[in-house]
Amino acid sequence: MSPRYAVSLADVEDAARRIAPFIRRTPLMTSASVDRAAGRRVWLKCENLQRAGAFKFRGASNAVALLAERGCEGDVATHSSGNHGAALALAARLSGRTAHVVMPSNSSALKVEAVRGFGGEVHFCEPTHESRRAGLEKLVAKGHIPVHPYDEAAIIAGQGTAALELEQDVPELEQLVTPLGGGGLISGTVIASRAWGVDVFGVEPEGAADTVASLEAGRIVDDYRPDTIADGLRAIVGQRNFRVIREKVREVLTVDDQEIREAMVLFWRHCRLLIEPSSATVIAALRRYPDRFAGRKVGAILSGGNIHPADWVTLTGDGSPG
Amino acid sequence: MSPRYAVSLADVEDAARRIAPFIRRTPLMTSASVDRAAGRRVWLKCENLQRAGAFKFRGASNAVALLAERGCEGDVATHSSGNHGAALALAARLSGRTAHVVMPSNSSALKVEAVRGFGGEVHFCEPTHESRRAGLEKLVAKGHIPVHPYDEAAIIAGQGTAALELEQDVPELEQLVTPLGGGGLISGTVIASRAWGVDVFGVEPEGAADTVASLEAGRIVDDYRPDTIADGLRAIVGQRNFRVIREKVREVLTVDDQEIREAMVLFWRHCRLLIEPSSATVIAALRRYPDRFAGRKVGAILSGGNIHPADWVTLTGDGSPG
Repeated sequence: MSPRYAVSLADVEDAARRIAPFIRRTPLMTSASVDRAAGRRVWLKCENLQRAGAFKFRGASNAVALLAERGCEGDVATHSSGNHGAALALAARLSGRTAHVVMPSNSSALKVEAVRGFGGEVHFCEPTHESRRAGLEKLVAKGHIPVHPYDEAAIIAGQGTAALELEQDVPELEQLVTPLGGGGLISGTVIASRAWGVDVFGVEPEGAADTVASLEAGRIVDDYRPDTIADGLRAIVGQRNFRVIREKVREVLTVDDQEIREAMVLFWRHCRLLIEPSSATVIAALRRYPDRFAGRKVGAILSGGNIHPADWVTLTGDGSPG
Repeated sequence: MSPRYAVSLADVEDAARRIAPFIRRTPLMTSASVDRAAGRRVWLKCENLQRAGAFKFRGASNAVALLAERGCEGDVATHSSGNHGAALALAARLSGRTAHVVMPSNSSALKVEAVRGFGGEVHFCEPTHESRRAGLEKLVAKGHIPVHPYDEAAIIAGQGTAALELEQDVPELEQLVTPLGGGGLISGTVIASRAWGVDVFGVEPEGAADTVASLEAGRIVDDYRPDTIADGLRAIVGQRNFRVIREKVREVLTVDDQEIREAMVLFWRHCRLLIEPSSATVIAALRRYPDRFAGRKVGAILSGGNIHPADWVTLTGDGSPG
């Protein structure tokens, strides 16, 4: 790997080779109806169909496989609102380890179940950033190897592999859009697409727009209190990620929770896939900011699909027609 | 096309070329968890992600494109419990036509909405086979061109194109499993795979096992009264289809509604995809009949995903963990 703060395109390519035996090469979805709703041609990368239900499995697999390559034995530990925890639990299990996951007490029960279903051990904490960090420190003090959900080179390199697949499958793309929570996915994406020459946009929920606030402040606003239905995007942007975003991301856009709900329904109606609110932010952004994407061929990464159908119905308010 | 009753492999290959501009080349899903549940390696062809939400769009596109090739103008008509109707409505719209669809009055509202959403006109009838046929005859008398949901050469050839894609993507498969309703999908599948040498199995719900009854009787039992949650499989097997099934299908298996429900939940839990009951029959059969598939590499066609999340929850009884 490259030095501490710099992740290179070569690191992403190494990650792609390393995790190929474990991950799903996820399909792309295109839909004339989604194109119409977005006003342009859109290719949607279905990481909602990735193993463990989210792109997070790419980074987690890369981090765990690197540990194995380096001969580091032992269990791993992290803090996560859910998807990274489940991904790390699965990656750890495939490597004969256990993952210890600090989860806020208000995590979705589905995501708690997923961590446990993959053999991970859940350690609940208060739903604050401080409490999450403290919980992780305790586990690390016990000798477990920390795998940060986004602010870590191996994770960033792994998340970038989704963009590499997009480049191979649709080289004519001109713009990429990803959800932005802690910043692992978007950092990996800009690094992976450095040689490709696409513009990369991030999307935050209005109620978790800490990166927008941080870009304005010129420093990470780490006391931001998120309030959004997009539970996967409530994290505060990481150090490495913020650096990459500030230098390389074209723009960070915001969408509100109602736009997210509408995008979830739109995508189900036209593509018959359930996506969690975090994923739906990219579709919402394509609809809200037509000027940003005018006439372009846009790739968007659907980050995850870990939402129970019953919760999807409650959240969207979209009932059965009868 | 070949003579009235014989559909050839060449017809399926022609259909594949003809419909390529319109259909989605659907992804395959593999899952270690599904493999474990089934006791073998399984490749699932996701026709639930086909346009209009089901494999039916393949046959409908082929039938409509053939009309266009032959210079036949005018609207089309059919009877359908839902998926064929929606597929024909979309195929017709893409060809500048209107589809008139006779639907039983107990059709799922989602499927009625889908037909209308694609610009089709719905004509309700009593939920009996006689009433469906009579409704269609009335439309044909008005000059609309009939496109039968399964007992028609162009439809069978179109449905076979899913198996061609499976053969290209996973040539090492040894067995194929498809749901069996009217028999269009399975007929196309055996014809498409004639040169491939795989064994083809069909699956019927126990409450709609008219083909099993017909195979035993040596003739089509056309007064069968279906009673199953698998609304897509309530049709009586067609003439052409029965002939092909009797000669070429290895075995028709049955599964009960509870096994179907469990398979729906299993597939959502491990693959994060909602499938309608008809699709789930193939997963249920893999679990129920381990001896039939012992040690084999099995391909299975998931026929459709047209079930509203709220109806999925009601039908499966699988609630959110909280």
